[in-house]
Amino acid sequence: MKTQTIVLNQERNVTLTIYLQEVGEKYLRIQTRPAALILPGGGYQFCADSEGDPVALEYLNAGFQAFVLRYSVGKDAVWPNPLDDYENAMEYILAHAEKWNICPEKIAVVGFSAGGHLAACAATMAKHKPSAAILGYAATMEKFISICAPNAPGPVDAVDRKTCPCFVFATRNDKVVPAENSLRFINALYTNGISFESHIYGYGPHGFATVNPTVQDPSALCSRAPHWVADSMEWLWDIWGDIDAEPDNKPRCARTVGGDYGEFLSVECTTDCILKNESAKELLHSIGMGELISNMEGLKGSNIVLHQILEYAQLSEEQITGIDTMLSEIPNLELK
Amino acid sequence: MKTQTIVLNQERNVTLTIYLQEVGEKYLRIQTRPAALILPGGGYQFCADSEGDPVALEYLNAGFQAFVLRYSVGKDAVWPNPLDDYENAMEYILAHAEKWNICPEKIAVVGFSAGGHLAACAATMAKHKPSAAILGYAATMEKFISICAPNAPGPVDAVDRKTCPCFVFATRNDKVVPAENSLRFINALYTNGISFESHIYGYGPHGFATVNPTVQDPSALCSRAPHWVADSMEWLWDIWGDIDAEPDNKPRCARTVGGDYGEFLSVECTTDCILKNESAKELLHSIGMGELISNMEGLKGSNIVLHQILEYAQLSEEQITGIDTMLSEIPNLELK
Amino acid sequence: MKTQTIVLNQERNVTLTIYLQEVGEKYLRIQTRPAALILPGGGYQFCADSEGDPVALEYLNAGFQAFVLRYSVGKDAVWPNPLDDYENAMEYILAHAEKWNICPEKIAVVGFSAGGHLAACAATMAKHKPSAAILGYAATMEKFISICAPNAPGPVDAVDRKTCPCFVFATRNDKVVPAENSLRFINALYTNGISFESHIYGYGPHGFATVNPTVQDPSALCSRAPHWVADSMEWLWDIWGDIDAEPDNKPRCARTVGGDYGEFLSVECTTDCILKNESAKELLHSIGMGELISNMEGLKGSNIVLHQILEYAQLSEEQITGIDTMLSEIPNLELK
Amino acid sequence: MKTQTIVLNQERNVTLTIYLQEVGEKYLRIQTRPAALILPGGGYQFCADSEGDPVALEYLNAGFQAFVLRYSVGKDAVWPNPLDDYENAMEYILAHAEKWNICPEKIAVVGFSAGGHLAACAATMAKHKPSAAILGYAATMEKFISICAPNAPGPVDAVDRKTCPCFVFATRNDKVVPAENSLRFINALYTNGISFESHIYGYGPHGFATVNPTVQDPSALCSRAPHWVADSMEWLWDIWGDIDAEPDNKPRCARTVGGDYGEFLSVECTTDCILKNESAKELLHSIGMGELISNMEGLKGSNIVLHQILEYAQLSEEQITGIDTMLSEIPNLELK
Repeated sequence: MKTQTIVLNQERNVTLTIYLQEVGEKYLRIQTRPAALILPGGGYQFCADSEGDPVALEYLNAGFQAFVLRYSVGKDAVWPNPLDDYENAMEYILAHAEKWNICPEKIAVVGFSAGGHLAACAATMAKHKPSAAILGYAATMEKFISICAPNAPGPVDAVDRKTCPCFVFATRNDKVVPAENSLRFINALYTNGISFESHIYGYGPHGFATVNPTVQDPSALCSRAPHWVADSMEWLWDIWGDIDAEPDNKPRCARTVGGDYGEFLSVECTTDCILKNESAKELLHSIGMGELISNMEGLKGSNIVLHQILEYAQLSEEQITGIDTMLSEIPNLELK
Repeated sequence: MKTQTIVLNQERNVTLTIYLQEVGEKYLRIQTRPAALILPGGGYQFCADSEGDPVALEYLNAGFQAFVLRYSVGKDAVWPNPLDDYENAMEYILAHAEKWNICPEKIAVVGFSAGGHLAACAATMAKHKPSAAILGYAATMEKFISICAPNAPGPVDAVDRKTCPCFVFATRNDKVVPAENSLRFINALYTNGISFESHIYGYGPHGFATVNPTVQDPSALCSRAPHWVADSMEWLWDIWGDIDAEPDNKPRCARTVGGDYGEFLSVECTTDCILKNESAKELLHSIGMGELISNMEGLKGSNIVLHQILEYAQLSEEQITGIDTMLSEIPNLELK
Repeated sequence: MKTQTIVLNQERNVTLTIYLQEVGEKYLRIQTRPAALILPGGGYQFCADSEGDPVALEYLNAGFQAFVLRYSVGKDAVWPNPLDDYENAMEYILAHAEKWNICPEKIAVVGFSAGGHLAACAATMAKHKPSAAILGYAATMEKFISICAPNAPGPVDAVDRKTCPCFVFATRNDKVVPAENSLRFINALYTNGISFESHIYGYGPHGFATVNPTVQDPSALCSRAPHWVADSMEWLWDIWGDIDAEPDNKPRCARTVGGDYGEFLSVECTTDCILKNESAKELLHSIGMGELISNMEGLKGSNIVLHQILEYAQLSEEQITGIDTMLSEIPNLELK
Repeated sequence: MKTQTIVLNQERNVTLTIYLQEVGEKYLRIQTRPAALILPGGGYQFCADSEGDPVALEYLNAGFQAFVLRYSVGKDAVWPNPLDDYENAMEYILAHAEKWNICPEKIAVVGFSAGGHLAACAATMAKHKPSAAILGYAATMEKFISICAPNAPGPVDAVDRKTCPCFVFATRNDKVVPAENSLRFINALYTNGISFESHIYGYGPHGFATVNPTVQDPSALCSRAPHWVADSMEWLWDIWGDIDAEPDNKPRCARTVGGDYGEFLSVECTTDCILKNESAKELLHSIGMGELISNMEGLKGSNIVLHQILEYAQLSEEQITGIDTMLSEIPNLELK
C-alpha cells in the first residue's frame, strides 16, 4: 500500500490524499478495484481529520482505492469552489484510473455533514457524477447549508432522474444537522425513482464518523449507528456487483426503481403514471377495462402499481402478462 | 413456556394466541417482562401465518411475552372492526398483566403490511396506545389502504404529539406496499417530534417477515433486511431501558426529540419555534440580540436549533447557558 | 407451535418437554425439520431450568423441533439411568418422527455441564446415537464426573470412529468444570478423525447457557461467548446441509476428516498411516521412492499428509495423481 | 497515515514495513496506540503478501500501529536467523515506541502458518517477548516444522509459565498444517496456566488469512472462520484493557488462569496441587479434614479445584473463606 498527498489548488489549499493498493499477485481475485472519494465535514470552515484517515482505512480494508479530498473552506468556500475542487479531484482520479487499477464505473463519493452536502451536490449536479454516493448526516437543504456556506445550492432540490444511487444515514436527534436534511433528500430520491438505502438511527451525536473508538466514544450512540460502515459496502456490492472475480458478480439492485422510469409502459407503472397516458387509457378501454380506469381514478396519489390492481381484480397471471405486452408498446411520455 | 389460543370475537373469528414465559427462579434477572402484540399482514383479506408464530418466537427468544392477534378480515374488515379487535386484545392483555408478569409500560405492537396499518392506527388513534410500534412494510396512506379496506383511515394523517415512538422498516422497491407509505409516516413522526428509527433497505420483496429460512428465501433480499429483528429489540431497550435487573437500565433515548416539544422554550428550540414566540423575540431584543433575530428570519424553514446559531455567532458556553435560563421561563405557546 | 410435557419414567421423575412447529402452509420451504434434544446441566443433582426453555427457544427460532429431557438426578442418577433416559427419549422421538415432521437423520443432542456429559455419552456410547452433538462446558473426564455421579463413565475415553460430529465450547477459566474436559474431548475427536468445531472463549463463568439477559449477566463473559448459539446452528447446516428446500443443500463439511479414515489409502493419508502399511511401502519402493520412505520415517509423529510431502519433493500434480491411483487399491488396514 | 519499508538485514533481504497513524488531535481519545507485528507465512520459503498488507489494514483499522516483517526465508531460513530477525524488528519498534506513540506493553505478534511458528517461538523463547500472540493455522510441532526448516525448534515444547497469552485459530481439516499443531499448542498453554482463546473452525483451506474477498474466496470456508479477525481484537482488549481513554479500561481477563499459578496456595488451587504440598495436607489434617484428603486422593488427575470440592462437601462460604486464609500463608512450592 502506498500513500501520498498532492496539491490540487495551491491558492485555496486544496489537497488530495491518495491511498493505493495493488492488484494481481497476492490479490489474485481482482483485476481492478472500486474507489472511494472521501469528503470530510467541518461546516465549510475546516476539513475534519476524524472523517478522513479513519474512513479511508475502512474502505481500503474492504478492497477500495481511497482518496481524501480537503476542499476549499473558510473564506475560500465561496460556491462553486468546493464543487470545482470535487470536479478536479474526480478528473485527476479518472485520468489515473488505468494506472491505479481503478474501475471508473465504480467510484463512490463518501461525504459527511458539510462534506455530505458537497457529496450530494456531486451526486446531483456535477459534470463528473460518482456512480454512488454515501451521505452521512449530510446537509442537503439550501436554507440550512446557507448558514455556513452563504451561496451554496441545496442538493435536495437538484435531485432528478440522473442522480446516482445513494446510501443515506443520520441519527434521529442530530442537533447540528437536523435529520430533516436526510429525510428530504430520500423523499426526493423516491419521487425521482432513484435507488437508495437509508438508515435513520434512534439516537447519537453529530459527527460520529466510523465510530472508531480512537475518535468517538461508542457508548454515546445507539448500537446500530456503527453498522453504516459495513452496510454501505454491502449496498455498493448490491449496486455494482460483488468486488471479486466470480463470473456471477452482477448487480443485485437496479439503479432506478419502478416501472414509471422505463422508456415504455408496463404493469409495473403506478396507476398515476398510467392515467396520465391517453394511449394507455384508450388501450384499457378497448379491452373492456373501463371500470378499472374509474377505480384507478379513485386511487390517484396512492402510487399503487397496476400489477397490484390487476391482482386484486383477480385477473390471471396470463391476462396480466397480456396487458403488460400491450403496454410495452406505448412510450412513457411522462419520462423526463 | 405455555401457549394457548383464546377467542376474542366468535362472530368475526378473532383470536388471540398467547405465548407466556415464567419469571423468577431460572429467570433471576427479571421480575416482569415486556410484551409484543403481533399483527400479521394479509391485505385485510386474511392473517398471514408466516407473520405470526415465527415473529412470536423471535420476541420470546429476546425475553418478551408474545401475542398474535388474528383480527377481522374479509367481509368483517369493515372499519373500525380491526381497531376494535386491537383494543379488545390490549384490554385483555392489560387485565392479565399482573398475572402474566407483564410490565404494562412496555407493550409493543408489531405489525406487517395491512397489520402494519393496524399497528400504525394503534400507535396514533387507539384508546389503549402501545408504548412503542414496530411497523414492517406497513400501509399508512389512506389512498393506499382504501384498496383493500374501503373505509379505513390513513394513520399517516393521524400522527400527532401523542403518537408512540416507532421503528419503521421497508424495502426501497416493495412492489405491493410502496416504500412511500413508510417515508410519509416517518416524515409525519419527524414533524411531530416523535422519536423513531427507520431503515429503508436497498431491495427485497414484500412480506419477508423475519427472513426465517423456513418461510422466506434469504437470497431474495439485501443482506441488511434481516437486521430489523435484532435492531428493533435493541431500539426498544433504548426507548424502555434494558430488559434486565441492572439498576442503571434507564432509557437511553427520549420519546420525543427536540426543544420544540418542551413545555418551556430553550436554546434547543428551532429558530422557527423561537420566531413564532413574541416573548422570546422581545427577550432577545432586550439583551441586544436584534441582529440575531433578523438573521434567524433569513433561516426560516431550516429547522436549525438556536444553540447552533449561537455557537456560530461565537457566543461563549456561559452566554448560551444564560440565554437558555431566560428562555426556560417562557411557555412554549406552539405546543399543542 | 405446540408445547407439551410427557412423563418418560414416573418412578425416577423423568420428563420430556416437547415443542413442535408446523411444516408446509406458511412454512413452504421445508417438508421436514431438524430436531434438538436438550440436556440441561446441574451436576446430576438437578436439571437447570436456565438450560431448558431458553435453549429450546433458540433452536425453535432457527427452525428446529425442540425437546428438553429432564433425566434422572440425585439418588436416581446411578449409571446407566441417565443414559437409559436418553435412549428412551430418543426412541420416543424417532417413533414420532413422521408424525412430527422430523428428519430422523438430523437430530442433534445439546448438553450443558453434566448434561454435556450425558450428551457426550450419547455421542460415543448410545445405541441411538444423535447425528451431531453440541457440548457446552461439558464434563467428559471420568475422574472429574465421578465427583457427582460416582459410577458414570468418561466419554473422552469412549470416542471412536463411530462418534458423531461434535461442536464443543467452554470458557478458558471455568472454575466448575475445567476447560481441560473440553480439550481432552476434542483431542480424542481429532485422533479418531471425527469432524468437529470448537471454541474455547477467553473468559466467563460456568453455566452461562445462551447468555439470555433474563438468566445471565452478559457483562460477566467475554464478548465472543454468546456466539456459540448462532455458530452451532451454522455448523449443523455445514454438517447436514442447509435447512431449506434449495436443491443444493448438500453438506459442506464431511463427518470424518482426513485420508486415514477411508477404506483405502490415498495421498491424503498421513505419513504415519502409510508407513504402517507394508503394501504401501512396497509400492513406493517399487516405483523408486525408497528415499521418500526414509524421509518419512524421520517425520514420524508429525501427522503430515503424503500429498504435502510429495509437493515439497516437487513431484508434478500428474505424478501425485498417479501415486494416488495406485494407493487407492490398497486397503487401509489401520482402519478399525 | 504514513507507510515506509526499512531494511533490517541487507544480506538476508529482511525488511520491516511500517504503517503509522497519529495520536491526539482528531484521535482525541488516545495518547498511545497498541501495535501489531505481522509475520506472514510461506513455509520459510517465501513471505506471503496475502498475509501482509491485508492483515496490516485490519489492525490499522482497529487503531493499531502495524508492522509487517519479511524475515529470512529459503537458504537464509537456517535457525535462529528468523528468530533473530524477529528480535531485531522488536528492538527497532521498542526503540521508536515513544516517537511513534506506541504503548510498549501492548505489542502483539500476529503470525500465520510458518510465520505462526515464528510467532509461537517469539511467544515462548524470545528475549523480547510480545505481550500477546495471535497464531493462525500455525506450525508448532518440531517434527512438523522440520520439513521446511530443518533445524527449527518446536515451540509447543517450549511453552512455560512465562509464555505470553495466545489467541489460536485453525480449521479442523487443514491439509497443509494439520490442526493438531494448534491443539497441541493450546494443550501446552492449558497445562502451564497461560490465558488463551482458541477457535478450531469446522472447515476451510490453509492460508485463508483475513478472508478478504480480494485474496480468498469466502465460500470455501465455513461462515465462522472470518470471525477470528474481530474476535482477536476483542480478545486483546480483554487482555490489555480497552484501547480508548476511559478510566476503567482495565483488563477483563488475567494473563494466567487458576490458583496453581499463584505464589501462595488458595482454595482456587487444584486438588493435585494441594496434595503435592505437605504443609497443605498437614493443615487440612489439623483442622479435621483428613477424610477430605483421602477423597482428593481418589480424584487425582481430575484437576478439580479445592473450592469446588468444599462446596460439594457443603461447607459454608465462611468456612471456605477460613480455609482460603490459612492456605494463603503456605508458599506454592510447585511453582516453577
